[in-house]
Amino acid sequence: MSNSTLYEHSLKGITAPEGFLATGVHAGIKADGLDMALIFSVKVATMAGTFTTNRVAAAPVVFCREQLKGGVGQAIVINSGVANACTGTTGFKNVELTAQIAAETLGISVNLVYVCSTGVIGKQLPMQAIENGIKIAGRQLSKEGGSLAARAIMTTDTQPKESVVEIKVGGKKVTIGGMCKGAGMIEPNMATMLAFITTDADVPKEDLQKALSSAVNESFNRISVDGCQSTNDTVLMMANGMAGADKLYEGHPDWKKFVEGLNELTRDLALKIVADGEGATKLVTIRVVGAVSNDDARKICRAIANSLLVKTSWYGGDPNWGRVMSAIGASGAYVLPEMVCIRYNDSNIVTNGVETDESSRAKLARIISQREFCITVDLHLGGGEDVIYTCDCSEEYVRINSEYST
Amino acid sequence: MSNSTLYEHSLKGITAPEGFLATGVHAGIKADGLDMALIFSVKVATMAGTFTTNRVAAAPVVFCREQLKGGVGQAIVINSGVANACTGTTGFKNVELTAQIAAETLGISVNLVYVCSTGVIGKQLPMQAIENGIKIAGRQLSKEGGSLAARAIMTTDTQPKESVVEIKVGGKKVTIGGMCKGAGMIEPNMATMLAFITTDADVPKEDLQKALSSAVNESFNRISVDGCQSTNDTVLMMANGMAGADKLYEGHPDWKKFVEGLNELTRDLALKIVADGEGATKLVTIRVVGAVSNDDARKICRAIANSLLVKTSWYGGDPNWGRVMSAIGASGAYVLPEMVCIRYNDSNIVTNGVETDESSRAKLARIISQREFCITVDLHLGGGEDVIYTCDCSEEYVRINSEYST
Repeated sequence: MSNSTLYEHSLKGITAPEGFLATGVHAGIKADGLDMALIFSVKVATMAGTFTTNRVAAAPVVFCREQLKGGVGQAIVINSGVANACTGTTGFKNVELTAQIAAETLGISVNLVYVCSTGVIGKQLPMQAIENGIKIAGRQLSKEGGSLAARAIMTTDTQPKESVVEIKVGGKKVTIGGMCKGAGMIEPNMATMLAFITTDADVPKEDLQKALSSAVNESFNRISVDGCQSTNDTVLMMANGMAGADKLYEGHPDWKKFVEGLNELTRDLALKIVADGEGATKLVTIRVVGAVSNDDARKICRAIANSLLVKTSWYGGDPNWGRVMSAIGASGAYVLPEMVCIRYNDSNIVTNGVETDESSRAKLARIISQREFCITVDLHLGGGEDVIYTCDCSEEYVRINSEYST
Repeated sequence: MSNSTLYEHSLKGITAPEGFLATGVHAGIKADGLDMALIFSVKVATMAGTFTTNRVAAAPVVFCREQLKGGVGQAIVINSGVANACTGTTGFKNVELTAQIAAETLGISVNLVYVCSTGVIGKQLPMQAIENGIKIAGRQLSKEGGSLAARAIMTTDTQPKESVVEIKVGGKKVTIGGMCKGAGMIEPNMATMLAFITTDADVPKEDLQKALSSAVNESFNRISVDGCQSTNDTVLMMANGMAGADKLYEGHPDWKKFVEGLNELTRDLALKIVADGEGATKLVTIRVVGAVSNDDARKICRAIANSLLVKTSWYGGDPNWGRVMSAIGASGAYVLPEMVCIRYNDSNIVTNGVETDESSRAKLARIISQREFCITVDLHLGGGEDVIYTCDCSEEYVRINSEYST
């Protein structure tokens, strides 16, 4: 990426851009540890967002979709521990109440407050803890608080996930910062994954939404840990214009730089989620080319990424390309088995549907013993292609998820 | 089932009907243990079959589909250890050669021989071992050999799976026997699962095919272990008429009894596969009612049955109905979350999209601690319904499948 710089900023995430403050506190939703984050822009920002496509959407998702119609915002309250999903009218009232408490605490209008939750489904928010948490957080907001916020939104994540990108707009420095959480229930179309992106660029809401939707489609919608899609997925972005640079819009000479910078940031965050996949020991890129259509390519990407047999064979370092072939055949995509070639990194392991030669399995065993590798499936049928980032499945995944809620 | 009897016959499986012999031998395809089965009807039988819908179909599947056009058969050779899938023209020639060797050994025409394989994908059959195995098996065929055959087709199965049903046709005893294998890669539409059914009923091939297709649809197509669909799935049925009873056909007064008996047998075999699911500790029936269409109900059944998060929570005995709600919402089916009710056995745990009452989680924890339970999802939208049988997912599943081929 020539126009932007992805680096370890002194402020590593959402508070790196001008005018953003944040913090993370222990509100008392979880038994211990940070469980509430607050993000605040000192100026009203334009807002963009994308949400889960799960028909069972959590109350905060329904609330944020509604708020977003206004296109502006100044604060985001996020709690971990309780998802506030499948909680009926009480759950929805609790989101409204959360926003109200935050608005009063911060002295802003309630239509500028967004609320996100992640955690166990079916439990009501402990509103006393929420209220206490917001009041403490309101007093603790700071530039340095970004990393606390990144910790406070974690559930089964083993580490916080932050990223910063800088670009130049008309010669002026513009910063994009982000943080996200997610380790399980990750599947294209937004999984239990929350991401928050801030920028001091000046961008009208329609353009911001367009840039965000496109970036999410190339990043968070292209990762899969376990094929399970969540009720709470949300990506929210705030642009407060405080860098003092030119207004950006589609067609502006520096628009492309902004879009590229945003794509770089979201891709970096998305890969951090896969790398932290529950129990994951390997990061695998699956690329399908030569399909009849992009849709067919996507079907095959997902069939491979979500095949338990494939994922467990990666974990075991088993050179079992046959399971990949089987997943391709079961994907529902149009396939001529005798045309299929599979490359692992730069090695042709499968040629025209059969093992390339006698050395294939030994080569393959070496490649899949690595922590990162890439599988390229060429169907030799047309121009359809797609890519997905995923991980292996270990006993640890099962252990984590058989013990989570209780 | 009033008209038939499912019981522990002295001959428990495929050799229970008149005129069927079988055996299982060590041919040398696996390092040790039984790895080849042979089934033989002393009289030419009518044949029916159903096969995997995986586009990457193994050579023996392609071969059997072709043979089945003749509608008759007398012998089936089955090997375990090597699937003969993704093996190109060599693989196909090896199936033809296998059939030829069996035909010569048994003194029958090659168009009466069927061949099935299960095991690792991508390896060629060791033809010397196959030839030796068939010759030994041909000498060992017996009535008692049915149980050896059931053992010889096993891969990761922990136990052989056999079943027998008896009915009366025009007052005469008619027997249906069966055996199957399968423990992983099990998904509706025929998974790595082989099943062989024999009967001494006299049934024309069109009627036999109709009865078999319908029975498979209600049994083997309604089980799921891991959502992975195999390259080799095959169900073959032979009817040799040797009971000496009336010819059976659709419309015959006893046709319904035959169909019911066959359904009972295939359902019994299918449930034995789920109960023996790799690493499985629980057998779960998922029933969806009140969907807009049967197709929507099927989508939800599969979304729940194939959700890793749901399966691991069952394993952990975690009363996490939220993961079931999330799977319902992500299924792609039309759902109004506030209408959804979920019953576990006879307890209403979720009512109108939320937890029924405060005792729900405790009740649920008790139910899912059992080895078998039933989940009923009522969408309250229409008349669509479906059912699926599945199991939980344990660390053991991961262990088995990360170590299988090497």
